[in-house]
Order: sequence, then structure tokens, then C-alpha cells
Amino acid sequence: MRLTSYFLPTLKETPAEAQIVSHRLMLRAGMIRQASAGIYSWLPLGFRVLKRIEQIVREEQDRAGCQEVLMPTIQSADLWKKSGRYGDYGKEMLRITDRHDREMLYGPTNEELITDIFASEIRSYKELPKLLYHIQWKFRDEVRPRFGVMRGREFLMKDAYSFDIDYAGARRAYNKMFVSYLRTYARMGLKAVPMAADTGPIGGDLSHEFIILAETGESQIYCHKDLIERDVLALEVDYEGDLEPVVQSWTNVYAATDEKHDPARYATVPADRRVEARGIEVGHIFHFGTKYSEPLGAKVSGPDGEMTYVQMGSYGIGVSRLVGAIIEASHDDAGIIWPDSVAPFHVGLVNLKVTDAAAAKFCDDIYARFRRANIEVLYDDRDERAGAKFATMDLIGLPWQLVVGPRGLASGTVELKRRATGEKQELSLDSALSKLGL
Amino acid sequence: MRLTSYFLPTLKETPAEAQIVSHRLMLRAGMIRQASAGIYSWLPLGFRVLKRIEQIVREEQDRAGCQEVLMPTIQSADLWKKSGRYGDYGKEMLRITDRHDREMLYGPTNEELITDIFASEIRSYKELPKLLYHIQWKFRDEVRPRFGVMRGREFLMKDAYSFDIDYAGARRAYNKMFVSYLRTYARMGLKAVPMAADTGPIGGDLSHEFIILAETGESQIYCHKDLIERDVLALEVDYEGDLEPVVQSWTNVYAATDEKHDPARYATVPADRRVEARGIEVGHIFHFGTKYSEPLGAKVSGPDGEMTYVQMGSYGIGVSRLVGAIIEASHDDAGIIWPDSVAPFHVGLVNLKVTDAAAAKFCDDIYARFRRANIEVLYDDRDERAGAKFATMDLIGLPWQLVVGPRGLASGTVELKRRATGEKQELSLDSALSKLGL
Repeated sequence: MRLTSYFLPTLKETPAEAQIVSHRLMLRAGMIRQASAGIYSWLPLGFRVLKRIEQIVREEQDRAGCQEVLMPTIQSADLWKKSGRYGDYGKEMLRITDRHDREMLYGPTNEELITDIFASEIRSYKELPKLLYHIQWKFRDEVRPRFGVMRGREFLMKDAYSFDIDYAGARRAYNKMFVSYLRTYARMGLKAVPMAADTGPIGGDLSHEFIILAETGESQIYCHKDLIERDVLALEVDYEGDLEPVVQSWTNVYAATDEKHDPARYATVPADRRVEARGIEVGHIFHFGTKYSEPLGAKVSGPDGEMTYVQMGSYGIGVSRLVGAIIEASHDDAGIIWPDSVAPFHVGLVNLKVTDAAAAKFCDDIYARFRRANIEVLYDDRDERAGAKFATMDLIGLPWQLVVGPRGLASGTVELKRRATGEKQELSLDSALSKLGL
Repeated sequence: MRLTSYFLPTLKETPAEAQIVSHRLMLRAGMIRQASAGIYSWLPLGFRVLKRIEQIVREEQDRAGCQEVLMPTIQSADLWKKSGRYGDYGKEMLRITDRHDREMLYGPTNEELITDIFASEIRSYKELPKLLYHIQWKFRDEVRPRFGVMRGREFLMKDAYSFDIDYAGARRAYNKMFVSYLRTYARMGLKAVPMAADTGPIGGDLSHEFIILAETGESQIYCHKDLIERDVLALEVDYEGDLEPVVQSWTNVYAATDEKHDPARYATVPADRRVEARGIEVGHIFHFGTKYSEPLGAKVSGPDGEMTYVQMGSYGIGVSRLVGAIIEASHDDAGIIWPDSVAPFHVGLVNLKVTDAAAAKFCDDIYARFRRANIEVLYDDRDERAGAKFATMDLIGLPWQLVVGPRGLASGTVELKRRATGEKQELSLDSALSKLGL
């Protein structure tokens, strides 16, 4: 993409309304624009990151054997009356009356609807287990939406639901999601720690939050350093095998948020292995048994012919929230530092001398080579000062910057900068390109 | 995907509520399930097709130089009051009051919001032209939703918007979208004919509908056979070049719906080249000048320093509607016939003798080979009668069926069936697999 035609409305000044760094940087980098309180439009740069994150979430759900569906945003109130949550949700639920005066709502979550789908289509234990997920916009009418996409009203969530004949099956589903969440966050370059959690308004008796470490995080966490040093992606996972040992290797080691912190247990962690840090919740998994299957009639015939209410769980990841959370975990004073896996472009190509025909041709050629190789490149072909170009590149945080200046042009060298470390190298064009995958 | 674990709730009987063939087949093939009147959940098979179609639409928008954004579903009523459409839309607009008593609505389209984004970010003609699109759920509170996803209340639409400094620029944008629409439908295996259209409630003075041919279509169309016989994809398109000749080669030839039919002009088409057929609208493009830029203040400084309201157009494709429309255009008595490009799986692998260990191993091996090659396969490993298996495969309409039966198992041959033609071949396993891309 050429920057002269790209819709990237960056801001030089820090917007006054943004209280946290991810919100400030998303506005400054032209990623989002507020449409109404807590409701955002995603501009091209932000949209690309959102899609990358969504795709990683999708791939890891699929890998764990979860099947993707898509439920609508607007639901009938009827199912929520059956489950008893229509009253419970209070003003956070966006209630709607349609032209025929039917009570509808904008789904804040989907336990009721997925249970209804299950109940009307599945009759026998032979069709179990089932793990279904969707990635859809949700709405929660927060009284004070703030922190940009970290706490918006309209937000993108991945929510998965498991259906099993008994607790042992439900536990296997829970373990699959537990492990797939670890993989999901690791692929985004995040250190995520699962922590025992209250089950809250969704109910149930087995629940973990996934918290990523970020200096600006909302909660205080305490954990054993082992949990942070583990290389999750090195673990070969067989989702059809027994995942209980893997899950226990995480849950047996101390990790707790402020609310659940137990100083006595924490004291048993060797002093040099104690980590006290700030964290952001980016996922939450629950087992809740028959809380929804009973009121909504989701039962199947078991091996003995008896009808049994299915055991369920639900598993959420805040997809749009993750865009902000990753920035909270990965930025510096100059701007965002995208992990490679979620970066909107792999490389920024900076032409420092666009008025020079030879420089323009040199850069155009490099640009064309990247495009032919399907390497995503943002090409700064604007007629701007070098300082402004560097500032834009640092702000939007692409992993690599390839800078073509007048000196290099003469000698055939370019400067390659790694955004995360700030490290710069003078290189021949060919060795720079080969470092970038060409 | 193994059918024993796939969530594919097919129906043997034809649902009484479905009046048209696509609705019947989508319900019977377990693609969708109604959540409320005119609101559907997409089950795994339907979701896969929806995503395929969305991806083709996306790729062709990107190719034409359109940049993807994502606007929210819930909008403030304020912008619609400025444009004057808040009153116009009547009961078809789903109006919502939030917890702070602010008037909101579920967007039926996005002219207002995109114009507002443009107006607040773009100031100079130097940043033009701009072509932005998004693919997002919309809501129109139809008084009598029907025909399944063909006329639902919550539906997925791709809507693009163009911003230009003058009419000539707007015309170039219009032409890009015109050509990209032809390519989009052609890639889905559809014969689409552009027809001059009324501009309707959106307003403006240049507009075409794209109609695909389907025996069960809602409108009567009249056109020259040339338009149907053209190979759109053979055309190499340079979107930065002059597309006016291409567009004129389509608009200069007779094509009209009932409403705009001119028997006198139609009579000038040679008798053996006249086509009278049924059609379904799957896209609509408009130029509407300053209809929205004026009330919403979208103006830029021109080369002379004067402020000018931008010239706009909008360009819609009904993504979820296309799922139904493709079925209307491509089915037979046994079920759906998916064009290869949008098929949920490339091949259905049918094991006729799952109780036989050798047959199971033979099929498991084939299944593993497809998966390793990333060829999407649905593997019918159910313990069912052959007749039921064939009926399911024909119903869900995968392009190819690879059938492993007892006889073949002995001799190492398999049966390969092409769903579209019904043609069956006895082949060695290797030659069958090579026909399937392995």
C-alpha cells in the first residue's frame, strides 16, 4: 500500500479524551475513530490488526476441534426469559422493540441462543461431544464506556460453547479450550497466565481468567515466574489426547489476581521466582454444568436410553479488546510495537527523497518486489520531511522499517531498522530484502 | 472434517415454511436455522459458504483499490437527522434508545457514518480519490421477512463509498466498481448482467443493478445474449487505466428489467440473440453527487484553494443474500450444486462400508492425504445406508464425491462423481486423487 493513497489519518497531538496509552496510540495511529460513546469505526490500519487477531483466534479454535458458526447480533427476548437472565442483566443489556412490538435485544453473549440451537437439533449422546464457536459483535450498554476498545459498548468477541454428556466430557472440553487459549495468546506474542476466577453472573464451578502482563494493566497479579518463562508454542499438543497433565502443570503453580491472592501460599514460592506485575484480562473460560441446558431443554438420550441434560461450558476471548491489550503490552514513547504475528504490515518502506526520480524508481522497484512476493508493505511515498516519516513509522509500529536515503541510493545500500529493539543496520539491498523474507 | 463429528443437522423433509427453493435447501442442508423472524444463525456448513463469498467480494474490492474499514452496527441517530433520512426510513429502521436515553439505530446502510468519518479526517483534494468499503451486518425491519436469507432482517452487506473532487473522478470510481462487480459475480460462477436502475431512496443520477440469471428469480429481464456469453474473467483489467470503454461495452447493449423494459429498443436486438429470463438482484451501484457531502459537511480544498463538497457514490453487494441467490441459480431436484469457488468443501469422501476395518483404514488414509494437502474434504464416516449417504452428498452439493465401496476396495478402484453433471467414473485411486488436485 502506498501511503499517498492509504487512508491513515494519524494525529500529531495526543487526544485529550484518551486516558490510557492504547487508546491514545490507536487514535494517534489512525486505527479507530469514535462513532458514538464506546462505539468505534475501525479505519484501515486498525481493521488489519483486528483481522489478524481474529484469524489467530480462529485457527486455534479450529485446531482444538471447535466448529465455527455465526449467530445473529439481534436476539429474541424469549430465550432470555426462559434462562432467567432477561431480568438479571439490567441496563447493560441493549433492549429493542421491533416494528411488531416484539421484545428483542442486542446479544451481550450467546449461551441462550446456542443452547436453543443445540436443543432443537441434537438428540443423542452419539452426536456428542460438540464444541461450537462464533466470532461476532456484541453489545453491552456500559454506563461509562472508556479506555477505547478496551471497554467499549460494541465489541468483537469469540465465544465458544461445549456440550457433553457428563462432567468428564465437559472437563475434556474445558481442557481443550484452556490449552488452545495458551497457544492463542502465545502466537500473538503475549505472556498469558491462567488464573482461577470467580464464575460471576454466568455461574458454574470451574473457571479461569487469562491475564496478560502489561505495565499499564488494570489488575495486580502474583505468580510464579515459571508460568511466564514457559515456551507454550514449543509444546506439541494432541487435542484428542489427555490434556489434564498439561492443564495441571499450569494450575498447580501459584498465580492469582488481587481478589484471590493468598499471601500464605505465595510465600511458598521461592523469593527469586516471585513475580508481582500488572495484568489485563483477555479471556475467560467457564464450566457451568446444566445452568442453561435445564431451562432451555437441551437434553440427549444417553447410552441407557435415559434423557440427560447436557453439561456445558463457555469460553470467551475479547477480540477487539486484544488490539488494545497488545498495545498496552507492547509500546514505547514513540508509539506501538506490533508483534510480527499481528502487525498490519510486515515492513514500512521509507523513501526519504521522493522528489528524486532515481530514488522513486529504486523504491518503486522494491515495492513491486514485495508485492509480488505477497509480503505486506506500507510504502511511504509522501513528500514529507525525514523526521515526519520516521515519526509516523515509529508511531504505527510495523516490525521492520526499510529506509532508502540519498547516500544509500548512491552506494546501493539501505537502512534496516527493527522497531522492537531500535537496532539499525546499513546493508546491501539484497541482504536487507533477504532478512525481510524476500 | 468427519461427518460423525460435524454439526450438520440435515432434514429429510421439506420445511413447510420455506416458499422458495434456496430457503428449502438451506434448511434441509443444515446451513442455517431461524433465530427469530428474518434472523438466522449460520450453522457450520452455511457459515463456510458465507465466508467463501465474503472473501471473493473482499479480494475483488481490494483489487479495484478499495480499502477495507469496519463501521459499527449501532449508530447515533444524529447523523441521520442531519442527512434528513431519519424520518424518511420509517419503520424499516430499527430504532433503539440506550440507557442514557440517546436515540440510536441499527444501521441499514452507512452513507451518513462514512461521510462523517471522511469529513472529519480529509481536508484536501490531494488526499483524493478515496474508495472505502466494509462488510458488516445490517438490519432492516421488513414488515414481512421471507425467502430465508434472500430477504432477511439482519443481513450481511458489503458497502463501498467513493469520494472524489469532481464528477469525472466520481465516474472513474463508478467504473471501477462496475467492473469489479462483474468480476466478483463471475468468480462465483454466476452470470450477472448490469442494468440501468432507478436510484430509489438513496437518490442520484447514475445507477445500475446487477442481476443474476436464475429460473426462480424475482424479476423478469430482457437482454442481448452477448451479455451472457461474455467471459468476464478473461478480461485483463487495469483499474488505473480508462475503464469507460469496458463499461460502455456493457451499457450499450440492451438489458432491462420489467420496470425499465422498452419493447421498441428490444426489437432492434436480432431475434436469435434475445434473452427473456428471470433474475435476482445481487448488487446495486449509485452515483449521488453531493447528496450526503452537503448536509454532513464533507468538503475539501481544491487546487484553487476553494472548498468543494465531494462527489460521492455507494456500491452494495448483498453477501448473505448471495448464498441464497447462488442456490437459486444452481440446484437440481436432489439438492444444491455449489460452484467450485464457493463450495463449503471441495470433495465429499464416502465410505460405503464403515464397519469393515480395511475400508475404514483405506478411507482414513485418503482423508489424511487430503488434509495434508489442504484440500477441504468432508468425510462421511457414518454407519448409514449407501442411499442415505448419496442423498446427503447430493443435497449439500459438494463439487466432487469420491465413493469407496466394497468392490473398489478389492480392486483398488474408487468412483468419482461430479455433482454438477452427475457424471461418474470408475478410476484407480491415484487417478481419482490427481483429478481432485492431489
